[in-house]
Order: sequence, then C-alpha cells, then structure tokens
Amino acid sequence: MSFSQSTGMFVAETHTSAVTWFFTIEKMLLSGKTKYQDYQICEVPRFGKSLFLDHNIQTSLLDEHVYHECMSQPAMTVHPNPRKVAVCGGGEGATLREALTHNTVQEAVMIDIDEELVDMVKEHMKEWHQGAFEDPRTTLVHADARRYLEDHRGAGFDVILSDLPNPHEDGPAVRLFTKEYYRVCADAMSDDGVFAMQAGCANANYPYCFSACMKTLMDMPDVFPIVRGYWGHVTTFMMPWGFILASKKHDPMELSELEISNRFAARGVKDRYYTPRFHNAVFTLPDYLYEAIEECGRVVTDAAPFLWEA
Amino acid sequence: MSFSQSTGMFVAETHTSAVTWFFTIEKMLLSGKTKYQDYQICEVPRFGKSLFLDHNIQTSLLDEHVYHECMSQPAMTVHPNPRKVAVCGGGEGATLREALTHNTVQEAVMIDIDEELVDMVKEHMKEWHQGAFEDPRTTLVHADARRYLEDHRGAGFDVILSDLPNPHEDGPAVRLFTKEYYRVCADAMSDDGVFAMQAGCANANYPYCFSACMKTLMDMPDVFPIVRGYWGHVTTFMMPWGFILASKKHDPMELSELEISNRFAARGVKDRYYTPRFHNAVFTLPDYLYEAIEECGRVVTDAAPFLWEA
Amino acid sequence: MSFSQSTGMFVAETHTSAVTWFFTIEKMLLSGKTKYQDYQICEVPRFGKSLFLDHNIQTSLLDEHVYHECMSQPAMTVHPNPRKVAVCGGGEGATLREALTHNTVQEAVMIDIDEELVDMVKEHMKEWHQGAFEDPRTTLVHADARRYLEDHRGAGFDVILSDLPNPHEDGPAVRLFTKEYYRVCADAMSDDGVFAMQAGCANANYPYCFSACMKTLMDMPDVFPIVRGYWGHVTTFMMPWGFILASKKHDPMELSELEISNRFAARGVKDRYYTPRFHNAVFTLPDYLYEAIEECGRVVTDAAPFLWEA
Amino acid sequence: MSFSQSTGMFVAETHTSAVTWFFTIEKMLLSGKTKYQDYQICEVPRFGKSLFLDHNIQTSLLDEHVYHECMSQPAMTVHPNPRKVAVCGGGEGATLREALTHNTVQEAVMIDIDEELVDMVKEHMKEWHQGAFEDPRTTLVHADARRYLEDHRGAGFDVILSDLPNPHEDGPAVRLFTKEYYRVCADAMSDDGVFAMQAGCANANYPYCFSACMKTLMDMPDVFPIVRGYWGHVTTFMMPWGFILASKKHDPMELSELEISNRFAARGVKDRYYTPRFHNAVFTLPDYLYEAIEECGRVVTDAAPFLWEA
Repeated sequence: MSFSQSTGMFVAETHTSAVTWFFTIEKMLLSGKTKYQDYQICEVPRFGKSLFLDHNIQTSLLDEHVYHECMSQPAMTVHPNPRKVAVCGGGEGATLREALTHNTVQEAVMIDIDEELVDMVKEHMKEWHQGAFEDPRTTLVHADARRYLEDHRGAGFDVILSDLPNPHEDGPAVRLFTKEYYRVCADAMSDDGVFAMQAGCANANYPYCFSACMKTLMDMPDVFPIVRGYWGHVTTFMMPWGFILASKKHDPMELSELEISNRFAARGVKDRYYTPRFHNAVFTLPDYLYEAIEECGRVVTDAAPFLWEA
Repeated sequence: MSFSQSTGMFVAETHTSAVTWFFTIEKMLLSGKTKYQDYQICEVPRFGKSLFLDHNIQTSLLDEHVYHECMSQPAMTVHPNPRKVAVCGGGEGATLREALTHNTVQEAVMIDIDEELVDMVKEHMKEWHQGAFEDPRTTLVHADARRYLEDHRGAGFDVILSDLPNPHEDGPAVRLFTKEYYRVCADAMSDDGVFAMQAGCANANYPYCFSACMKTLMDMPDVFPIVRGYWGHVTTFMMPWGFILASKKHDPMELSELEISNRFAARGVKDRYYTPRFHNAVFTLPDYLYEAIEECGRVVTDAAPFLWEA
Repeated sequence: MSFSQSTGMFVAETHTSAVTWFFTIEKMLLSGKTKYQDYQICEVPRFGKSLFLDHNIQTSLLDEHVYHECMSQPAMTVHPNPRKVAVCGGGEGATLREALTHNTVQEAVMIDIDEELVDMVKEHMKEWHQGAFEDPRTTLVHADARRYLEDHRGAGFDVILSDLPNPHEDGPAVRLFTKEYYRVCADAMSDDGVFAMQAGCANANYPYCFSACMKTLMDMPDVFPIVRGYWGHVTTFMMPWGFILASKKHDPMELSELEISNRFAARGVKDRYYTPRFHNAVFTLPDYLYEAIEECGRVVTDAAPFLWEA
Repeated sequence: MSFSQSTGMFVAETHTSAVTWFFTIEKMLLSGKTKYQDYQICEVPRFGKSLFLDHNIQTSLLDEHVYHECMSQPAMTVHPNPRKVAVCGGGEGATLREALTHNTVQEAVMIDIDEELVDMVKEHMKEWHQGAFEDPRTTLVHADARRYLEDHRGAGFDVILSDLPNPHEDGPAVRLFTKEYYRVCADAMSDDGVFAMQAGCANANYPYCFSACMKTLMDMPDVFPIVRGYWGHVTTFMMPWGFILASKKHDPMELSELEISNRFAARGVKDRYYTPRFHNAVFTLPDYLYEAIEECGRVVTDAAPFLWEA
C-alpha cells in the first residue's frame, strides 16, 4: 500500500475538471501582485526557479528553453533575413532573448502591458532575459500590444512573436487571440513577414484554444496563405504546448534540415530543443489535434472571442 | 485573483518531488485490492473511466489507445509476418487487443502474474480488452513472465511485448527490467524477433528509467543489434511516455510511410495515434533524452537493478 | 525541513475559505448516490469507519458518540419522563439509539426524508443504529419532517430531536431551521416538551449558523421560555459543535450532577461524553459565541432563511 | 453534487494519518529559515495574519488570545502575588505579553533559543508581542531554556510558563518535556511557585503527548503535589489544546469565580477567553482524556523521551 500525505508549501493549479496540480514550493523567493496579476517566484524541486502568475505555472529553469525556442526560433529561422522583430507580451524576456540570438536582427521591440511585472523580471529573473533588455537593439514598450501595432501599421516587422497570456475572461489578452488582432499584426509586418504565437495546450484534454486559433488563422488565406501548427513538449507544463506559425510567404515545411543548420551557423544560433534534426518532429502534429480543429475549432473574432475555461 | 478550494473525492499521485496530481473522482466504480496491488476504477472528468493501481494512474478511456498502440504497433508492424506473439504483463488486455488486430497472428500468449486483477479487468474493463481474452488465438497464463519465458526458451515468438508495471522496489517487476530478462526474452524469440517494452517517463523530469533501459539494451548488440527508443504523448499521464524497440533484424527506421500503410491495409490494422504519417515523429526523440542516456543511463542487471524513485 | 507529498485516495472538504481538509481514505467501503445526496462509507485511519455526504464528513466511529449523546441526552435527561420522542432527520439511527436508552420511552418516531440513505445505513452502518430501527418502540417514516409534524400537531411529543443536515442552499433542510419550523415543533410537543437541535459549528471561524439559530429561538419566549446553547467537541469535525435546547418548562441549568446521575441510573443510561460530571462544561459556552449571537445572529424565517456558506 | 478544485497557494500540514489541512495563503508576507526552523508569515482568509513553523500552523490573529491566555493566565492568576516570571520558549512574545498584564510582575525573563525567529517576530508580528519585548521588566535571553534554568537553580521564579514547540524528533524541545526538565523548573521556582505548560493536542485523535505529560507530572508528587490538566479550544488549530498546571501549593480548582474577578481587577487583567466565568469549564476535561492518561500515558524521561509522531 502506498500512502503518504502532504506537508509543505504548494501552489495549486487546476487543469480542467480532471486534475489539480500541487507544485511543491521549496523556497518562496518573491510573492506579490501587479495591477494585472498575482505572481510568485519560487524554487520548485527539480524544476528549479519557477514563475507562477495567478497561481498558474508559467516557466521554470528546467525547460524554459523548450517553450521559448518554440516561441521564437521557427519563425525567426524560416525568415531569410529577419531584421526587425516585435515581441507581443513576452514578460520574462526570454522570447526576446531567443530572437536576438539571430545576428540579422537590427531592431527588436517588446510590447508588454505589465510594467511592474517586467521590472520585477529584470531584477529577479536574470536567468531568463540574460541581459536582453539591455541589448542596444531592444526597445521596451509598456502598452497594449494590439493598440501599439494598430499605431504602427506599415512598420514592416519581419517577424512578430505573440507570446501572450492565455485568453482568460476579464484578462488583458482576450482581444489578442482574434481575427482582428491577427490582421493588425499582418498590417504591421513586411510583405514576407512571419507571425508566430503561443496557442495553448496541445494535449487531448484541452485542445480548444489551439483549435480555435488554427481555425481562425486558416480562415484568412488572403492574409496568411501559410498556416502551420506545431508543438513542443514542456515538462513544466505537463503537456505538449501548441504554437502556430502564420506566414505571408515562407513555409517552414519547405525548410530542410541542412538549410536550418546553415542558417543557425550563419546567424550564430545554438538551440537545445528546436534543433535542425528535430524541426520535422516539431511540425508533425498527431491526428487528434487535426481532428480537434475540425470538430471544435471555430473562427474567433472580437465579437465572438475565445475564453479559456475557468 | 484566482482562489478556489477543493471539495470532492480525489486520488493523489506524486510525480517526483516537484508535483502531486489530484485526480477528481466523479464516481467510484470499483475499489479493491489484489495480492499484488490496490486498485480503483473511477470516472474522472474528461478522462472517462480510468484505472489506478496503488494510486498511480494507469490508463483512461481518453487516450488508452495512445499508450497501447505505441506498446504494440511499432513492433508488430516492423515484423514482416508476426505469427506468434507474447505479451508480458499487459493487465488491461489492450496490448493484447492491439497485437491481435494483425491478422497474421496465429497465437498470442499473455502472461500476467495478477490473476485477480485480470479477472476484474475481464468483467469491468471491457472497453479495454474488447473481447481479446476470448479470441481463440489467445492463451492467458498467470505466472511470472520471466519464469514463463525461461521455461519457453526456443519457443520462437516473433514479437514479445513487455507491458509491465514500473520497477518499484518490492514490486513484482524489478527483475523484468534487467539485462538478464532481456536475454531470456531474446532466447524465447525467433531469429528475426522483435521486442518492445514500455520504458517509463520520457519527460525532462524523470528520464532515469528510460535512460537505463536504453543503455542496457544498447549494451547487448550481439543479441539486439537494433535498439530504437520512441515516445508517445499520453495526456492521461501528463507526459510523453517512453518505449523501446529492440530487434534482431528488422529496423523501424527503415520502414517507409508507404510500407506501413501497406502492411496496415494487408493485415486489417487501423490506428489512431501511431499512423503511417506519424511513425517518424514517434521515433524522433528530443535531444534531452539522448543526453539523459549519456549522462544518467547505466546497464541494469539483476545484481544492480533499477529502482523507481519512491 | 519537512516536506512530503500525497499519495492515496482522499475526500476533500473545504471549511470556509481558510482551509480544506483532505481525509485519507484507507479503504472505500461503499460509494453511491441517493435522490438527495452523494455518499461514501470509508475507512479513515484513526477515525475508523466514516460517512461522507456530499463530500462532507458526517460521522466516524472514533467519536460518533460525542455528537449523538449531545444531540439526544441533554433533552432526554432534562425531561422528567420522556415517553414519546420524535427524531427529525437522524439518518444514521444513532440519535434514535441514544433516545431509546431511556427506558421511559414508549414510542419513538424517526422522520427522515432520504429512504435510500436509511436503507443503506441499516445494512452498512450497524455500529451506529445498533438495532434501533428494529426496536418495537420505533416507527420509521420517510417524509419531510416539517410536513410530518404539521400533520401531527397536538401529537404531544415529550422530546423532539432535530438532527438535520446543515441548511445548504437547495438542500432539503433550509425550511427546517426557521422560526416557522420551531413553532411547528412546539405545536407537536406536550406542554412540558423539550426540543433539541444540532445548530452548526461552534468555533470562532463559522459561528453564523449557531448564532442565527440561537437568536431565532430566543425570539420566541412565549413558545420556548428557556433556550440554552451548548457544545461538544467532535474530533472528527475538527471543531466543537453547537447544539441548542429549547424548552417549555424544564431547564437543564437547574439540573444537578446528582439528579442527572439518578436519572441515568433509573433509566438505564450510560454515557461516555455527556456524563453527569461533564454536564456543566457542556452548557458553558465561551464568550466568543455569546458575542457572535449579539453581533451576527438574526431571526431566521421562511422568508429570510439562513443559508450555509457554500 | 459538490465538486470544486483548488487554485491558489497553500501550506499543508498533516495531522496524523487521518487528515491533511491545506491552509489558503491569500498573501505571503514573509518566508524564510532560521537555524532551527522554516517560517512563513501569511494572510489566511478568516484567520488573518498567521505564522507557520516547519509548515505547522502556530498562531493566527483570529484567536491567538485563546492559546496565549490559556498558556499564561491560569498560572499567573492562581499565584497570589507573581513577581518574578520565566517564559521558556514563547517566540511570538504573546505569552510574555499576557504575563506582563499582571501588575504584580517586577521581572520577566523570556528564554528562547531561536534568536533569528524572535528578531523576525519583533519586527513583523507586533500584533502578538504588543511591545512586551520593550517592557522595562523584560529580559530576553537566547539560550536553551533547560540549560538556563539549570544555571539559575534557586532563582525563585513565582511562575514558569513553558511555551515550547512540540517534541519532534531531532527538534530542540525533546529534552524539555521530561521529568528531569520539570525538576529543573521546580528547582528554579519559589516555594509556592506555579508551573504551566502547553502539552499538545487535547482531541481524541492524538491525546498521546498530553497524556504522557500528565502522567509524568503526576509521578512527581513530592515536587508538584498539585497537577491539573486543562484545555482551550483553538479554532486555528482545529482542536482543543491541552495545558497542564503543576503547582507546589496553590490549586486552581480552589479558586472561585469571585476570587478570579477580584484578582483580575486588582492586577489590571482583562481576558477574552479565560474569564472568571469560564475558569471552571477550562479545568473540566472530558472523560476521554482521563482515559487516555490511564491507557496511553507514561512517565517521560531523558532516557525515554516522548517523540511526536512524524
């Protein structure tokens, strides 16, 4: 028989009605609240330093690289010469950090609405941003990303990376998962621009957000003729995470392992999860996700937004 | 702020010191104890009917097919004509069920030590075995699988599927994850036999069992010149699961999508997760697993067994 | 440092926003659902056999006697000659059992609306009722207790014991914690009748139900000139529980230890918690409860019912 | 049906194998570690500011007065003229605070081994000590309390209050719950000195520590002819807590309500839980505790210490 009980400190996160995760907090490093969210920075055994926002695990040192490489690298790599990049959201600065590894980049704008959080990150999460905020190519803006891009139509971003919180009701990101938002992004991009976004869970338990995002982006072929879903297994999230690359011209499925290697070498990129060898596996989704797009995907608009299940 | 608390019935499973999962039990269908283990059959929201053994989630209707297809189909498929199959362990009868989908099979022996559990499964988990125990090709034996195979050296199994519980200390499976056991399997196999096993977690958090099994099988090239690790994402387990195919002659990496399609069609096999299209993704492991094999893998023997962390 | 995590089966009950209790389920004996409620009968370590209704702990063998003696014995004892007794609710049959220990009793009616639950109790909770349902003096009625008593005005019960579930919204007991209900009880009682009820938590955390019940009964001096709050510490509930005795004539505060001893001896009563020696302690409440009656008590009526906090 | 799941931050404490409490942490105020223990100061809903040591709840603003009045006031009050007082342990400074309410006190020594914790308390738990550390009558010593008293035999303390952590194995208090320790206390007391201690849980679930302490003090009638167990219900602890008063001469059972009122008035004491009216209830224990003393109490010595169950 196997019985034991809990003693300790925990952050609990419910992932659908099926299961609640109690993460062990070995050491509470920082706990506070910004205008937008509650946060904790903690040591979690095996995960190392970890960030929780509103009691949802966000990232840990164990494998933040998996998430952030998937968030940045396919889009950055598929573009033949990414000079101007925007990161929407991206609080920890690690998506920005990944984008900056491409020496082609001349300008990187990160637009995150939560200034207090980014200030906290700058000081307490250096392992994530690794100085990216101090990079001379970086401009940090605290604003609503959609509004910023609306004000910068025609800015000609080669790559836009949409690293936003999930669209929880009453949260700040609901209008940043809609067709209107994607169009705003497209308008701020160059003619061969590439857009990538985090699109929610890619497990069989909650494929709804990913399916809806896919369906929506696939519904605007005039804007994005190429839409590719992909995934990365994030141990910290206890599931594979879904991402989408939407592109005006360049198709990641046409990129060979050799070409990726060459681009990495030329641009000074060294990855751990999204490697040239692993590119195809990242872009190969299981049937259940394709079925979910058909069965439960729907076009998401400002008028009919997708709301993450409470 | 997001605060809520629990009311309800739960089965809790700790997965390393990092996290404990509390699965919601919507309905308790059956709860009991065999000579070897505690069991519960429950309705879990979204997972549907689910089995817990010693308070560890084993399988749910949501995606038992992912696990059981991975357990059976690569080995069955890579063999050009699997007629005689053995399943070691395999309590729910679903690994057996998958093997029997190949119409080439003339004889399938399932050797599971826990008769009480299998009796319970027969009556209460029909969605899993789907009549496989009644298939005229099936022989069900209640014995220690290793001992059975020792007594059947030279039996000429084309495929052996090792679907055993993790090697918990004091559990019945510790001696079924060792080099000696793999040799016993090889001796009971035909000259072009294929062996496959479930090999534990394939996440970044606990790659130890998988690494050790890989290292061990790779350390016996005279017996198994071909050793291929692969994985499948099991939502119910909240992680990708690791499997290993060890083969005397046939290499799954040389199997084309077309050849798999042809074999499926000829043998009457229809899969949902392990599809011809998805074969390559299943056999493409991320770098962290290869690194783990190097860094923490070791040869496991009867004298130096691998014990799953409590 | 003290860290450990949970493995096992649990029933979780939230007690206010402050704390959730996870009870260890060593063995699930029975789990089901009646028209009115979900139930589990389980072995809990140290508590022994225990009953949960809607995932709220109800009673355990460890100290069911504390609750049931407090529920029955003060009212039974203060009445000089209780012949006719009614138990409202009282599912487990243990309040009835206690009442029947007084050999003065000639007739005991138990009115519990949940027939399925009582049938289950009869078979699976014999340690509680101990044959009380088979006592020739017992009449068991499955009906709404308030309606039954309305139909039996003038029945002349010497003692009415109101052992009802807490008044959860949408539950069956909301109208059995109101002034109108207490009046119905009074009308069904003899001229020197005694009424006792379970009145909710008596801790500093949730004194609201107890306070409201006290305030309400104290607001009807024409009906019940004597109203006495009392408490008993129920380890299983992890708090002291509150009870109220409302009486037309007999006052428990005027009962001496000697008189209680004499009545126990004469009537064949043997108690473990509510003993003659302990009577005064049971009727001595701490100041915080008196303050709560003043500060948050209010008269509860059908029109303005008390609803237990979710 | 009642189902909900947890989101939030929690401190979990297992209370015997029966139950684990998950306390909701609304706000983490401070979290750290001294040489002796881990601590958290948090806002818990309804409890208010609360202290956890090694993930065990210690005290909350909801009812810290219940515990600290019980810890101090019976001993202080029964002594006709307490001038010189020692507090052993007492980290929060609230036992000291209560003792100092008696204007008879000329000298109060608090001996707590954990200087880091007391420094933290001084700054962050002012609601507890309320300036007691700055009282000119106070001397604060950081030392092992037993060693300090051994060095102060004949010091003539009128009252010694032993407010120590439970005797967890490897903890600093194991040798402060033994007969040898009590004798050291007696030797440091005046001829009519009064000793009081916190003695562990007083519920039916874990009466072992209380029983052992009672048995031990009752086994030294030459030193303490008068030994009285008493209890107070601490909502924060979810149980009644046990205390023991051991006295060379003065007996609390002989103190009338009037005499207590007079002493309170003369000395300027105002209590909320331990009131003159409530004194008798506090000193009236239920039978189960007397039975536990008989059945599982035993004399505790340095050679055969009592160790709190893990």
